[in-house]
Amino acid sequence: MFPMFQSHFTRHWFSSQALEQWADTSTLQAWLDTEVALASAQADLGLIPRSAATRIEEMGKAELFDLDHLSAGIASTMHPLVPVLREFEKLCGEDAAGFIHWGVTTQNIFETGAVLQLRRSHELLLTELDRALAALATLAQDNSEVLQAGRTHGQHALPITFGFKVAGWHAELRRERALLAAAGQDALVVRLGGAVGTFAAMGGKGRAVQDRVADLLGLGSEEVPVRTAFDRFAHYISILGLMAGTAQKIAQEVVFLQRTEIGEVEEAFHMGKVGSSTMAQKRNPSRSQNIIGLCRLLRSRVPLAQESMVRENEGDASASNVADVLVPETSVLGCSIAGNLAQLVEGLVVYPAAMARNLELSGGMILSEAVMMQLADTLGRHHAHEVLYEAAMRTVEEGGSFSEAILQHEKVAAASETLDLDRLLAPAYYVGEAAACADEESAR
Amino acid sequence: MFPMFQSHFTRHWFSSQALEQWADTSTLQAWLDTEVALASAQADLGLIPRSAATRIEEMGKAELFDLDHLSAGIASTMHPLVPVLREFEKLCGEDAAGFIHWGVTTQNIFETGAVLQLRRSHELLLTELDRALAALATLAQDNSEVLQAGRTHGQHALPITFGFKVAGWHAELRRERALLAAAGQDALVVRLGGAVGTFAAMGGKGRAVQDRVADLLGLGSEEVPVRTAFDRFAHYISILGLMAGTAQKIAQEVVFLQRTEIGEVEEAFHMGKVGSSTMAQKRNPSRSQNIIGLCRLLRSRVPLAQESMVRENEGDASASNVADVLVPETSVLGCSIAGNLAQLVEGLVVYPAAMARNLELSGGMILSEAVMMQLADTLGRHHAHEVLYEAAMRTVEEGGSFSEAILQHEKVAAASETLDLDRLLAPAYYVGEAAACADEESAR
Amino acid sequence: MFPMFQSHFTRHWFSSQALEQWADTSTLQAWLDTEVALASAQADLGLIPRSAATRIEEMGKAELFDLDHLSAGIASTMHPLVPVLREFEKLCGEDAAGFIHWGVTTQNIFETGAVLQLRRSHELLLTELDRALAALATLAQDNSEVLQAGRTHGQHALPITFGFKVAGWHAELRRERALLAAAGQDALVVRLGGAVGTFAAMGGKGRAVQDRVADLLGLGSEEVPVRTAFDRFAHYISILGLMAGTAQKIAQEVVFLQRTEIGEVEEAFHMGKVGSSTMAQKRNPSRSQNIIGLCRLLRSRVPLAQESMVRENEGDASASNVADVLVPETSVLGCSIAGNLAQLVEGLVVYPAAMARNLELSGGMILSEAVMMQLADTLGRHHAHEVLYEAAMRTVEEGGSFSEAILQHEKVAAASETLDLDRLLAPAYYVGEAAACADEESAR
Amino acid sequence: MFPMFQSHFTRHWFSSQALEQWADTSTLQAWLDTEVALASAQADLGLIPRSAATRIEEMGKAELFDLDHLSAGIASTMHPLVPVLREFEKLCGEDAAGFIHWGVTTQNIFETGAVLQLRRSHELLLTELDRALAALATLAQDNSEVLQAGRTHGQHALPITFGFKVAGWHAELRRERALLAAAGQDALVVRLGGAVGTFAAMGGKGRAVQDRVADLLGLGSEEVPVRTAFDRFAHYISILGLMAGTAQKIAQEVVFLQRTEIGEVEEAFHMGKVGSSTMAQKRNPSRSQNIIGLCRLLRSRVPLAQESMVRENEGDASASNVADVLVPETSVLGCSIAGNLAQLVEGLVVYPAAMARNLELSGGMILSEAVMMQLADTLGRHHAHEVLYEAAMRTVEEGGSFSEAILQHEKVAAASETLDLDRLLAPAYYVGEAAACADEESAR
Repeated sequence: MFPMFQSHFTRHWFSSQALEQWADTSTLQAWLDTEVALASAQADLGLIPRSAATRIEEMGKAELFDLDHLSAGIASTMHPLVPVLREFEKLCGEDAAGFIHWGVTTQNIFETGAVLQLRRSHELLLTELDRALAALATLAQDNSEVLQAGRTHGQHALPITFGFKVAGWHAELRRERALLAAAGQDALVVRLGGAVGTFAAMGGKGRAVQDRVADLLGLGSEEVPVRTAFDRFAHYISILGLMAGTAQKIAQEVVFLQRTEIGEVEEAFHMGKVGSSTMAQKRNPSRSQNIIGLCRLLRSRVPLAQESMVRENEGDASASNVADVLVPETSVLGCSIAGNLAQLVEGLVVYPAAMARNLELSGGMILSEAVMMQLADTLGRHHAHEVLYEAAMRTVEEGGSFSEAILQHEKVAAASETLDLDRLLAPAYYVGEAAACADEESAR
Repeated sequence: MFPMFQSHFTRHWFSSQALEQWADTSTLQAWLDTEVALASAQADLGLIPRSAATRIEEMGKAELFDLDHLSAGIASTMHPLVPVLREFEKLCGEDAAGFIHWGVTTQNIFETGAVLQLRRSHELLLTELDRALAALATLAQDNSEVLQAGRTHGQHALPITFGFKVAGWHAELRRERALLAAAGQDALVVRLGGAVGTFAAMGGKGRAVQDRVADLLGLGSEEVPVRTAFDRFAHYISILGLMAGTAQKIAQEVVFLQRTEIGEVEEAFHMGKVGSSTMAQKRNPSRSQNIIGLCRLLRSRVPLAQESMVRENEGDASASNVADVLVPETSVLGCSIAGNLAQLVEGLVVYPAAMARNLELSGGMILSEAVMMQLADTLGRHHAHEVLYEAAMRTVEEGGSFSEAILQHEKVAAASETLDLDRLLAPAYYVGEAAACADEESAR
Repeated sequence: MFPMFQSHFTRHWFSSQALEQWADTSTLQAWLDTEVALASAQADLGLIPRSAATRIEEMGKAELFDLDHLSAGIASTMHPLVPVLREFEKLCGEDAAGFIHWGVTTQNIFETGAVLQLRRSHELLLTELDRALAALATLAQDNSEVLQAGRTHGQHALPITFGFKVAGWHAELRRERALLAAAGQDALVVRLGGAVGTFAAMGGKGRAVQDRVADLLGLGSEEVPVRTAFDRFAHYISILGLMAGTAQKIAQEVVFLQRTEIGEVEEAFHMGKVGSSTMAQKRNPSRSQNIIGLCRLLRSRVPLAQESMVRENEGDASASNVADVLVPETSVLGCSIAGNLAQLVEGLVVYPAAMARNLELSGGMILSEAVMMQLADTLGRHHAHEVLYEAAMRTVEEGGSFSEAILQHEKVAAASETLDLDRLLAPAYYVGEAAACADEESAR
Repeated sequence: MFPMFQSHFTRHWFSSQALEQWADTSTLQAWLDTEVALASAQADLGLIPRSAATRIEEMGKAELFDLDHLSAGIASTMHPLVPVLREFEKLCGEDAAGFIHWGVTTQNIFETGAVLQLRRSHELLLTELDRALAALATLAQDNSEVLQAGRTHGQHALPITFGFKVAGWHAELRRERALLAAAGQDALVVRLGGAVGTFAAMGGKGRAVQDRVADLLGLGSEEVPVRTAFDRFAHYISILGLMAGTAQKIAQEVVFLQRTEIGEVEEAFHMGKVGSSTMAQKRNPSRSQNIIGLCRLLRSRVPLAQESMVRENEGDASASNVADVLVPETSVLGCSIAGNLAQLVEGLVVYPAAMARNLELSGGMILSEAVMMQLADTLGRHHAHEVLYEAAMRTVEEGGSFSEAILQHEKVAAASETLDLDRLLAPAYYVGEAAACADEESAR
């Protein structure tokens, strides 16, 4: 069950591609890529010999390092990077060793490394989101006129179409996709200011070195490279939290719509999928439930990310330690949510007949507003509300037909002949602009 | 001390202007403004009589309502808007009463009302942020060359300039100001889809009505007006959370820099300001501490906002109830943080002499990197690190002069003549591009 | 809608008794009560003149103070208590004035005052919880044999009895009531150590004074009265959070069970209660939804309370400011949740016929385990699971009768004569020890 | 850096013993132990053949299972336990296979397994806490009279002793240790009610089976074994959160006291420990910073645990999935925090000379209260406060000696001869009952 991301029992919850981007060897390689780009940029600007940069590039390969050996060194030095540098120095040999990590500090390497990994995760995320959005658009379009009970506060309210509901999901996720694309772009910057951010060890060429590294790696270059700025990452994680809010809403709705009593949709099922170790009949909405769990896990990281912005002085490991864990975790969670969501929507089975059946459950009361608006023309909206309220409460308390209760109301009696209740109580005539909204949104 | 926003003991923590925007009478007026705009738009589109709209406009004034009477009605109906509507109907008289609230639902009015209030709060927020940014820019500029100890993990690390530190604050807050402006814009939309969002009660003219209301009120118009979309507000609140992260960082740094042992800055003080009921000498960083408290309160609302995005079916009061409280609270907190921050920065007193004095505390060790980088040219960076590590640890453990310990190191002995330690250990020569960064940022 | 606790639009959500305990005048009185008890104890121990203590007691009445005047003083001194002391001094006159607040600090007064208020809130909370527990016990007992569908992951699983479900609620809330009683007791202590907690200004009699005040007020006396200990309050608030978890679970279950499609229970309803401004038929589970909202608000304060435990040095207003707001808010929320929960349970209407009807929905599949356990005797549990899985999946995919599908399974064919499916598929025979559990728990 | 618990780069942050308790093989073994105890109890009660129970016990060994194979099965069935059961059945052979997992459901096995693992973690936690408490008691005792500046809101306030400060830590952690012991005990119960908690598949002997399993495993037996009760775990995790609040406070204080400007304590250091990859002089408070990070990670799980209490109907994987991850994570974090804290305190180096030096920094103003209390005897406390306030503010604004400023104050002039400022401004005479409090607490 634990540690969740690697456990044999839970690792299938997660995007294996995202996990790979954040595996230890990928992390090490991202650090090495940063050191290599740094050396190369410094050679370009004449700060270190070209030959050293070349040697550093040759040896900057994760597979040349022994992870277990590094791990032991980290425990004994209580420093997370120095053992890596020592190993790297040995690999490069005396002539180049002295030019590794020139003028920078650990956090510079860790953050730029994380940015390189994040870029790949971020691309994966957008790809999965696009899959989910495409599936939602199709689902909205295909069901734009499929009638369904609209429910508020757990009670039947008015009819909608299923496509309209889905269009609402699409619109929300579409907005978040745009926010994520922008936040991702903002987060992908290089920060190489050294120990306190001033580029003190770069002989006046620090900003130029940082710009050059940014070019080499295809990233942005930070404006004021203080080590205590975590806002770009915290922003990205906060937006991931919004995406998780939407994904959880969708997944919870699927769990509801798949309920035994509702039966309006169902997750993809394949023979061999097991709902319960003891209740053979169970066809559980497992994927939706996993999405909900992942969304909760992701959202719980947002306050941690915003708290981690509060850092002391020029550097503060008590906050950046947390960040080192948060960025990978939230990236994997984000990709896993988006991927699962895409699969959920792509495989969703819709049961229009069940939707139609459920629409009938309230004996027409779901359309009380339609009747009220009709009566409003003659009685005024406020008196009409009174009529329908009394008729509905009487029907609930005493049983009997809602139509009868309306027609028998004293204020209606006179107008009853012109009241075409059969039409007013037909769901298809009272879904307003649902289909149009769904169609328009699908095309966005 | 409670309820905090109105208590006699704590209300001065908060922006009185923001509080006013969210007072009950402002809320009621915002609801009425929405009903008035709705009626007007519906008259324009021929849905209700012009005369009714005119009457509704005449009576749509909060001062005509009795808040205590409304409050009693809300408790007895257990509905938050119906008693307002009934009062409004009475005020308008029979001819117009029936056309109030035509085709919409409570949440439409509450949300649009909240948007109107938010717009004013949001403008106030941006104004306060601009004040804070201007003050930070000046502070960064004025101190761009004022030397100060840079500290990481609580230890002296390397020199910086105070202006550089402030520039980092400016850059972060500047980015958040831009995010807030955009998120605010996104949040200011009208949603008038009625009971389940389909515009069912608007006779096919729903989208047109919504667009017209949006025009009248100067707001945007929602694309798919489902009632379960809270992402726009949750986004805004999440970005407020980022701003709170930055503001808390700044305030905590001021608390630190004002410490008795540090004394490098001080909050504005006036005779009569009291630090303690028992320790007469206390000059506490009260404003900074209040900011920290407010930031914590604000950040604690972010997960609530993101959780509130998860809503069932077509409407869910168990989540929207929370939102009704969150939007006002976070707006007031946001404005109060920004306003206090502006005052804090504007009044901040800087003590360059104390900064210079503290820089001397480590006996030159704060500049070990400068020496290392110099030695690196001949020994290589890695051997140079070793030399400085051993010299520093020896100084700490045995006492004595850091310079001596360096010069006596066996690897240095040969090169010692060319080593200009006096210059290398002078802070002014080793602040890199700090001043340039501060100057550039001040101008952004 | 805001500030929520006092707004005309939302104040009916909250316990008016609890609000009263935490109103400004109650707060001021609690501070004065603390100052009075302190003076009295110090007179007993010979630290100040008896006459001064007597005068202090005479004047220690909130109604003698002008709250608006205090409020202005607090804003100008930026100190929350000094203006109160100055006013108090004026009221007491020169002879006694000098002995007010002898040897203590603001936080001592605030915390002891809060403890006095908390005691009253806490008693109210326990009373409301006892009401809720009594109502739950009755509900469990009355429905211990009322059959209902048990559902897991949204799917019909096995039958339960409604009383069994309620017994689970009772057991959980009962455990929390016990934890709350203990945590409340632990929190009710006096801390009067003065500026840094050492009793420096009490001439060696500090612990004796604190003990005496504790006796006078009927509270405990803190062991090491440091000002940075917030664990007792944070503990209490954390347990309130647990109670909110349970209350939210119960309320969400009621919302579900009241759904149009389920209809198994309903909240108390009275004519005049309005569900919707536009859908007259709506009978919403408003109280349950309010409880859910309150629980979310309360739970969101728990991390803030635990964060507020982290305080610097000997006193830290950036954390204690937050506490000053948290303790009242969570107390009011806790009482309001417990009170609403009691009302919800007391008024709950149960519909056994609807429960019975819903039990039939799966065509017997809800009892697949009963058949499996029967077959297990001959086939083994594992093969029996396979049989039922295949029969159920076939029924779902192809339609038809579940009984038929079982009997036609090749592994069953031989044994089919001895299989009494009519009995096995009757819910009443397969609810195990549900009724016994409900009965036992009701009696706890 | 990720997944944090197993990464080569971060795993040394965590208690290796705790990690071992929650490794996949331990988890699998705990599940098997539960199945074995269940079979044994059921044989005792005549529900299944003794021979089957014996066989199940023989084969219930994790090393007989292939974890990678299980993992693949879990992914394809989308069920976390069924593949384990199938493998177990194969191992037991036809005669026993059918009696495995008799009458229970997956969550029963997972929860009871987790309880078995938690018991070991919990013992480890208490052991580490006891180490930390013992070290704190010694530290408090040894330093009960060592003078130190007391600071509030970042400003020197009054003298304390270092032992007094530590006693406050001890008292808080001692209270939490007691709460944890109790909460741990409460959490260690068996829940074996089967699919919906009613023991339906146990032929009326369910409660007896559960009690018997509880006896065999040395655990408690749940009263109403509903699957939706998570309060016992959530309680335990909430109390862990309190412990994290205290541990973070202690660690942050060490970071502060080790600051370059303060230098009053230092973490254990060994040659080879590296503070920075670029600043050789750095001796960072790494262990304290790690503790802070771990505490933040742990506290962030508390709201998740309380949210996970909110479960639908009779079982809800969208919440219990989260719990499956939370319980292990928080246990490992808890043990790691307690272990690191013990090591931190045991190794802490105290510098009384630095404490004494810092006490002098305010030129006597730190003792203004002592003078005030003396003057209070003649002037009254309120006028005395005024005198000291004016003297202190004058000293700060104009420089000069604090003593002079006091003596020159008009209200003091007359009384100045009897004012022994030398003694009043000596810290040793004004630490009240600090030493006594420290001594008493050390002995608790």
